[in-house]
Amino acid sequence: MKRVFGVDLGGTTIKFSIIDQAGNFIDRWAIPTNTENGGASIPGDIIESLKSKMATLFERGETIEAIGVGVPGPVNGDVVEVAVNLGWNNMPLGHLLQEGTGLPVTLLNDANAAALGEAWMGGDSAFRASTVVFVTLGTGVGGGVIVDGKVLNGQHGCAGEVGHMPVMAADTRQCGCGKTNCLECYCSATGFVKTANDLYEAAGDTRAYTEGKDVFDQVAAGDEIAIQARDITVDYLARGLAAIMSTVDPQEVIVGGGLSHAGDLLMGPLAEKLDEYVFPGTRGKYVLRRATLGNDAGALGAAFQAFQMLAAGAGEQMI
Amino acid sequence: MKRVFGVDLGGTTIKFSIIDQAGNFIDRWAIPTNTENGGASIPGDIIESLKSKMATLFERGETIEAIGVGVPGPVNGDVVEVAVNLGWNNMPLGHLLQEGTGLPVTLLNDANAAALGEAWMGGDSAFRASTVVFVTLGTGVGGGVIVDGKVLNGQHGCAGEVGHMPVMAADTRQCGCGKTNCLECYCSATGFVKTANDLYEAAGDTRAYTEGKDVFDQVAAGDEIAIQARDITVDYLARGLAAIMSTVDPQEVIVGGGLSHAGDLLMGPLAEKLDEYVFPGTRGKYVLRRATLGNDAGALGAAFQAFQMLAAGAGEQMI
Repeated sequence: MKRVFGVDLGGTTIKFSIIDQAGNFIDRWAIPTNTENGGASIPGDIIESLKSKMATLFERGETIEAIGVGVPGPVNGDVVEVAVNLGWNNMPLGHLLQEGTGLPVTLLNDANAAALGEAWMGGDSAFRASTVVFVTLGTGVGGGVIVDGKVLNGQHGCAGEVGHMPVMAADTRQCGCGKTNCLECYCSATGFVKTANDLYEAAGDTRAYTEGKDVFDQVAAGDEIAIQARDITVDYLARGLAAIMSTVDPQEVIVGGGLSHAGDLLMGPLAEKLDEYVFPGTRGKYVLRRATLGNDAGALGAAFQAFQMLAAGAGEQMI
Repeated sequence: MKRVFGVDLGGTTIKFSIIDQAGNFIDRWAIPTNTENGGASIPGDIIESLKSKMATLFERGETIEAIGVGVPGPVNGDVVEVAVNLGWNNMPLGHLLQEGTGLPVTLLNDANAAALGEAWMGGDSAFRASTVVFVTLGTGVGGGVIVDGKVLNGQHGCAGEVGHMPVMAADTRQCGCGKTNCLECYCSATGFVKTANDLYEAAGDTRAYTEGKDVFDQVAAGDEIAIQARDITVDYLARGLAAIMSTVDPQEVIVGGGLSHAGDLLMGPLAEKLDEYVFPGTRGKYVLRRATLGNDAGALGAAFQAFQMLAAGAGEQMI
């Protein structure tokens, strides 16, 4: 069975894995991300780590066919346009890795990689969705869209940046992207906590939470203000997801990231609101579920895209 | 040069055309749409009209290679799932036309057809966008999304139904789809006129317009309430388009339909607001323009998809 390298390039750690065509992790290891000098040494560090592994495998008569890399920024072909966390601008990562290892390379944005990984190996293994919307609710709100089993990359590598769609809100919140009142300002874990703390403050309650989990613990305990904050967050999220769904009409909508660990406390009301806001022609016909792969989603998606590249080169179809 | 039939199936008229691979109309004619008996005779009427034309062409030694049909409802393969204006439910139109004419047939939703037609032959002929968002602002708000030169159909034929994304508004408006406060309730010509009339009424002004053009005449004349209605409409539209753009990251955004005839009075403020709301990574990098093909867009898009079908069958690529 064919095997590829799945690489998850993060701001603090570079996670490597060898993944087979059935989605099994054959091997995994990691090295720290060296962001000094504008991240200039990162491509060389990746090449060195991969070549060392390839040498070991060669001695055992084993081969790897390709490399898939998830990167923290928009991708255009084999170039990473920007990766703020790494200090990169227009880094020709695909070209460098291909030159350095002799293997074919495919790059994708990390949120898109996670989306593709979840579409491939997440959820009920009996069900493989080909058109998928994926959102992560963490420090920010990330996303990815899969159409006919392939990542929708967009014209500038920015497809799936759904965390930055504008929302109409009573208050004004500054987003890290430079705009105000992005979906991320209200539906990230950070945004949810702020909504709760603002409501407590308005009620003369001085408590101030820092973690989404703590607010969800209050929801579970029946705290009315926490429930109100949850409902406000769910309403914004359902509106945002309905807008995305009216555009791409997916088979499956997957919610990941820290807030998704709240489980039914989030997903129950979200399912209800979403079915209210979606286009009636699709109501009840899509699957809404939590992400199941956690941190493995990115490596799996990167690997899957590498398999797709190999299949396309051989004139085959993966999905 | 290859030629196909481009058919634009509407609720009152079925428009036929013969279109060549360069996008030229070689011939065009029309018949009335017979919606009696749940539109049962429509497939037969189309077959009869096409066969009669094929017989004439045969005498001249000319052939047509395929049929593309734009239909007023969601499409799933060769089936029209629903077409309220025709009285259809699960009509196997593709199969029927193929059986009746012997030609390969491809179906697409009419708004998707218009989107594909505009992406193919609209605008500046020196520029062919491969990833396109198209919206029409008429009685309702329709839309279509083109990704890599192909219609994004969605899992249930409902991709591009962007007129039904939810918007946050101060008032409540019933949408024809059964929901309240869809984008269409505010950004269609009908919605725009209602916004203006409501503002006039609130100002104690008894005038009530029925046409978007009349309100835009007031905008041109500097009427403050009409300008306010225009700005509200533009704000909703820019937010909606930004949400769509954050999802698919298009190269081109095309605005058609009755309201687009207002030209710069609409497009000027829209361009400004849109650039404010889009993800900063795409700001200034996309083209916003008016539709240029009018009623020909649908037939051209249907024909283009027919050419794509022929090319795919021959292992070629159109774009």
